[in-house]
Order: sequence, then C-alpha cells, then structure tokens
Amino acid sequence: MAPKVLISKIKWAHEEVKELFDGVADVVTLDKSMDRTDFFKELSPGGKYSEIVAIFRTYGASFGPFNKELIDHLPPSLKWVASNGAGYDTVDVGALKARGIYLSNTPAAVDDATATTALYLIIAAMRQFSNAERSLRDLKWKPAGSAAVSYDLTGKTLAILGLGGIGLRIAELAHAFPMRIIYHNRHKAEGAPEYCEYFEDAEEMLKQADVLNISVPLNASTRGLVGEKWIRMMKKGSIIVNTARGQVIDEGRTCTCFYLQPILISLSNVQLGSVGLDVLPNEPNVNPRLLEFPNITLLPHMGTETRDTQRKMEVRALTNIRDYLVHGMGKDLVPEMRT
Amino acid sequence: MAPKVLISKIKWAHEEVKELFDGVADVVTLDKSMDRTDFFKELSPGGKYSEIVAIFRTYGASFGPFNKELIDHLPPSLKWVASNGAGYDTVDVGALKARGIYLSNTPAAVDDATATTALYLIIAAMRQFSNAERSLRDLKWKPAGSAAVSYDLTGKTLAILGLGGIGLRIAELAHAFPMRIIYHNRHKAEGAPEYCEYFEDAEEMLKQADVLNISVPLNASTRGLVGEKWIRMMKKGSIIVNTARGQVIDEGRTCTCFYLQPILISLSNVQLGSVGLDVLPNEPNVNPRLLEFPNITLLPHMGTETRDTQRKMEVRALTNIRDYLVHGMGKDLVPEMRT
Repeated sequence: MAPKVLISKIKWAHEEVKELFDGVADVVTLDKSMDRTDFFKELSPGGKYSEIVAIFRTYGASFGPFNKELIDHLPPSLKWVASNGAGYDTVDVGALKARGIYLSNTPAAVDDATATTALYLIIAAMRQFSNAERSLRDLKWKPAGSAAVSYDLTGKTLAILGLGGIGLRIAELAHAFPMRIIYHNRHKAEGAPEYCEYFEDAEEMLKQADVLNISVPLNASTRGLVGEKWIRMMKKGSIIVNTARGQVIDEGRTCTCFYLQPILISLSNVQLGSVGLDVLPNEPNVNPRLLEFPNITLLPHMGTETRDTQRKMEVRALTNIRDYLVHGMGKDLVPEMRT
Repeated sequence: MAPKVLISKIKWAHEEVKELFDGVADVVTLDKSMDRTDFFKELSPGGKYSEIVAIFRTYGASFGPFNKELIDHLPPSLKWVASNGAGYDTVDVGALKARGIYLSNTPAAVDDATATTALYLIIAAMRQFSNAERSLRDLKWKPAGSAAVSYDLTGKTLAILGLGGIGLRIAELAHAFPMRIIYHNRHKAEGAPEYCEYFEDAEEMLKQADVLNISVPLNASTRGLVGEKWIRMMKKGSIIVNTARGQVIDEGRTCTCFYLQPILISLSNVQLGSVGLDVLPNEPNVNPRLLEFPNITLLPHMGTETRDTQRKMEVRALTNIRDYLVHGMGKDLVPEMRT
C-alpha cells in the first residue's frame, strides 16, 4: 500500500502534486474548513487521516495552531510535517522532535519575494511615497515639504538584523544602489559577500544605521528584541522596516515601547523618521493608532503574496515530503531539527 | 564689474551658491512671486535684471513658461540659462539657440532618484502593494485574491523605452533581481551593459515585455508615442510605468487612448494588468477616472523629490553657470545645443 500524504491546501501547484506523488504516495486532501475537533477525530484510529505519513501544512489552516495538543493527536505513522512558508513560529518544534517527527519549512523559496517587499518598504519610507499617493488621491497633489523629509537610498547605511536567506537577498538588492550594508547575527555569516560588514555588537550597528531592516525569525530569543533601548540608539530620523514577524518589535504593553515608533514620529521626528511594516503583532488586527501617522507605510503581510513565489513554496514543501518518501530524508529541516 | 547671475530660487544649496560664486559673480535673487509683467520690466534697460549674464531657472517659476515671448525679453547680456532638472519641455530651445544663448539641464543628477521612483512603481504595480495598503488602512487587511494578480520581478522582462541616463540607472537596479532588460532607442546605446538587449524595432520589444518603462524626454517626436496601437501589442496583464512626462502616453482625447489603460484594466484585465504613474498629462490635475481603478499606483511627480537629489541638481546647474563664467563653457548643454 502506498504511503498516505495529507495536503491541507494547495493553491497553485496542482499539476506538480500529480507529478511529484504519482506512483509514490496516495494524496489525501483535507476537507475544506474541517474544524479542530473533526480533524482530531479523523487522525484517530479508523479515521481517514489515521495512517498518514506526512502532512503538507499551510499557515492559517482550519484545524488551528500546530501546538502540542494537535501534535499529541498525530498518528504513529506520521513522520514528516512540511510547513509551507519560512516562519514556523506557530509550530511546537520541541513536541514534534520528542515524537521523532521531522519538520521542514521553505526558506529559500520565500527569499526573493520577501526581500522585494523589504526593498519596497525601504524606498516607500525613505521617499515618503505612500503618503504622497494618499495626497494625490485626495486631489491635493504633492504633500507640502515632502522633499525635506525624503532621502535617496544611495550611499545611506542599511543595517540588517539577521543576515539569513532573506537578509542576504535584501543586501543584494540594496547593494545595486549601492547602500552601505552592515549586519548583526550571533555569528559572522559564512559566505556573505564582502560588502556586508559584520557587527558582533548589535548596538554598535544600530548607531550607524540610516535604515534598520528586521529579518530574524520569531522565537524566544527574538521576541521583543527591537525595543525602546535599541530604537533610542538609532540616529534621529532613521527608519525601521520589518518583514519578519510583528512580535520581534517590543509591543511594550506595559510601557511606551510598541507605540514608541509612531509616538516618536509624532514628537517632531525626535527619533524615527518613518517605519515600513509588512507584519503586525496581532494580524489581521491593525491598531488604529498606527493609522494616525501619515508618514509610515503599512502592508497586510504581503511578503510572499505572489503566484510565482507561492507556487515555488508549495513545490518546495511537497518536494521535501517526496524526498523523504523516496530517499528517506528531505531537505529544509528547520535548524532545531538539525541539532 | 563682476557678471550678474540671476537665481530664481534655491532650496538647499545656499552654502554652495556662496562657494561657487564668491569672487566670480554677483548673485541676484529673484523677488518672491514676481509675476511675468514685472519680470519683463526688470529685464528691460534700467531694470534690476537688465545686465544678467546667466539665469538659474527652476520649473514652475512665478514668471511662467520659458517660451519665445519670455526669451524675446531677455537682455543682450544673457548668455546661459541653467535649467534645474532633466526635462526642459517648457523651454523654447529653438528661440534660445537663435539668440545664441546656451541652455543646460541637470541630466546625471536626477538619474538615481528618478530610477528609484521607477523601481518603486514597478514593484508596486507587480505586487499590488498600493491597493494592499489602502485595504489595510480600511481595516480590511489583505485584498481578496491578491496573489493571483501579483508577480515576482525576478526573471520577468523589463522593456525600457529610452535608455538614457535614467533608463540605464533603472536597468542597473532591475538587473540586481535580475530582470531581463530589453530596450529601444533610435540608435543602439553606446557603452550600455551587455545585459541590455537592443531592439531597433520598438514593436518587437513591446511584444516581449512584462513591464514597459517609459524614460524618453517629451518632445515633438515622443508626444503621444505610447498609444493604443503599442499597448495592444503588449502581453495580456503587462504593466506600464511612467516617470518621464505624462504626455508621452497618448491622451487620445478624440478616441479611447488616454483612458485606454484604466478602461482596459477594468475589462477583466484584457490588456494591461496595472500601471504605475509618477507623471500625468496636466499636472497637478488628476483625472478622477484614474482613481476608480484600485490596482494602479499613482504618485504626484515625486521623481526627484528628495533633499539629497534636489541639492545635487542645484549644485550641478549652478556649476554649469560657474564653468561658463570661469572657463567660457559649461557642461550639460542640452542635445539640441550640441548640433
């Protein structure tokens, strides 16, 4: 009997599913809008997902978060979870590992589209284009004094927090201007181009930045990493761009931190000149206070929102499952699985 | 007696004016909001501008267009008009030439900022980001089905109409992805990078384009150049970006041409997928019909709207005057002056 693979949802790679699994596995597609209770029932002995060997899992699936409760319901046959996307902060990696189940993501596939989004936000924030378009659409043409708060990218310093795949791709795109590229990782990135200058000390990097780009994954050590202390170290009028996860910026519910950005902007640009955010802490909710600041650019998590990249991600995640089934091991194991 | 230089308006390079002309010329600054009649009076014998040798001229000066009527009023002492900006479509070059007056512009100074604007519009149009931001600001988060009409830049074909300084700079920035770069000029651009493929036949180029970028100056041979015939040659769902002049796109007041773009967009994407416009035919007026199409991006002529570039432009235009005064010839003569 061919192994069973459960696919939670495919948007673009329908043809590729057939090509990849024909003769290799039986593909079972998740019933639309199956809720968590029914999902658990079907995973149990006798249920239609009771013998699955692998799951292709998408963010926001109807069965809810991939936490320990869900993982405890996975059948003994289950060996591979292929998460579609770079971020897997809603997956309990420890619980999977304890069960001996592999977790893969699709890191390389998202780099280009996410880095393009970051570049867009950098341009928008430095040039004040989002506000300019709103002004035009209000039939007011150009906002008064816009050149005074607008800057060229060329020659400015871009600080990349987290020079992984996405960060490196942003560096490549920004190098075309060129911007000066500085970065901070816990360790110097091996194989990074020479034009990327490493800062072991993040705070030293921040002092030199005209733009801080956030490209670290969300985990226990990065949650709230960019907070008031760091922001205050940046130059007056500098810019923060975030295409990673909203929670990497300190929400500071008990202090001034999350609203630090817009508040500081409003304080006659005492600190930040602008921000560009593709991610928010509590998506899809938008704190309306953010909308009070005309000089910031906001996107509704559009980082990988293209048919080209979404297809690439799907194919990559599916290929990891196929490789496991055919060769006994797939690619793109998340770092926690490699240690 | 030192030669007199009239400066219509300086925004950023105040220090540089002193450095450039100290000991070289007497600088006279145009009275604020001086109207055309008064300007003509002051240019006449006995007027305070009657002996000026050079003018630093900005777009939108209070004395109105630099047409033949104005040029007829220039004093015999006048030898150099330094126009601040790349475009000089509101200057009657023939009338200046007939009087033996030189005209310079600031071509190189605008390239970086204008090309950055074009890149922004290309990303915005391919990724549907402008619509996405409006959706978020309406508290509706992501527009439904946005991935289906969004594309990665990488690997797509960018057609550049007019590979001059700005076009070349756009090619450099787009090459970082890389996009495939194809272009049409009347003649092959000497010294262009090898990755820029020349098309002698503009229509052959259009058939291959995913994005058409317009970077030709506005003149008699380019007015209305991009019209219905050309647009219909492009692939379904392709994109047009314009950072040159609005009138390069056929306004087609007597036919369907100017409104062709949005009309076609509205027709279930029969032809264009999106447009990104930094320039409009009758600025600062905005035809409200343009605003009916959510998937297009509009900017109020922000191409060079940065303090960095505006300073660079001013310094460049002023240096051309200084070079003429000190060395007998300045740089950046417009092409019509070189033949």
